[in-house]
Amino acid sequence: MTTIRPLVEKAFPFVERMGLRLDHIEPGRVRMTCPLEPNTNHIGTMYAGALFTLAEIPGGALFLSTFDAATYYPIVKGMEIKFVKLASTDISVEVSISPEEVARVSAEADANGKADFEWDCELTDAEGNVVCVTTNHYQLRRHGS
Amino acid sequence: MTTIRPLVEKAFPFVERMGLRLDHIEPGRVRMTCPLEPNTNHIGTMYAGALFTLAEIPGGALFLSTFDAATYYPIVKGMEIKFVKLASTDISVEVSISPEEVARVSAEADANGKADFEWDCELTDAEGNVVCVTTNHYQLRRHGS
Repeated sequence: MTTIRPLVEKAFPFVERMGLRLDHIEPGRVRMTCPLEPNTNHIGTMYAGALFTLAEIPGGALFLSTFDAATYYPIVKGMEIKFVKLASTDISVEVSISPEEVARVSAEADANGKADFEWDCELTDAEGNVVCVTTNHYQLRRHGS
Repeated sequence: MTTIRPLVEKAFPFVERMGLRLDHIEPGRVRMTCPLEPNTNHIGTMYAGALFTLAEIPGGALFLSTFDAATYYPIVKGMEIKFVKLASTDISVEVSISPEEVARVSAEADANGKADFEWDCELTDAEGNVVCVTTNHYQLRRHGS
């Protein structure tokens, strides 16, 4: 799993500039943290676009730890995001997908070339307060379909 | 309106790093553009987090051009965002708010200290294709309420 770290933290300049950290990764589960600096807005809290990115990037990390990248690739279709509390510390997120859901999504992509899946996630501050909730919509696609 | 430009384009480091440009601003209307570089993802198209930010930041610009910042301030409550096409050029967005909606939101914030408002927006590529659609939820708050 250590080989996934640079693929996530330095996936592309947008993510690298934010300093996103991969805290933990295993098949089906990933935890990431976004540092408050250099991601503050005009009032010194974490900017909404950084929170969006922290909610979205684990989808790619989870894909890499869980699915066969030689067979499938993921795309993000959309997100509903609600900001519920000012984010004034580093912010973390943990997302997971069950073995049953992995099996369902893989089988559907094998049969149809693509399969939609989604999850809800919560972003929490250093005190454990939820600052942001999202529903993420992804699609797994099979290469060559 | 020219004094608003640095407040928007260099509002905070996250926005400045992306190179967001304020193309046009007047009371009730704003147009902005996000350059493809340095905002690409691992496949060379514009990253979803950059598209989110391009959809969100005009809310602040429109506020500055339309409402009295000495009396009110805006917060972003949430967004529904759908990615409908790969974004492979610079991407632009234009948002507007009618005088009637400005009057409604201001009156409600005067009466209650806060007022919700929202708008839909489309992000378009250099050929005019829609790459992303959003519904943005904001709240206008009256200072001291």
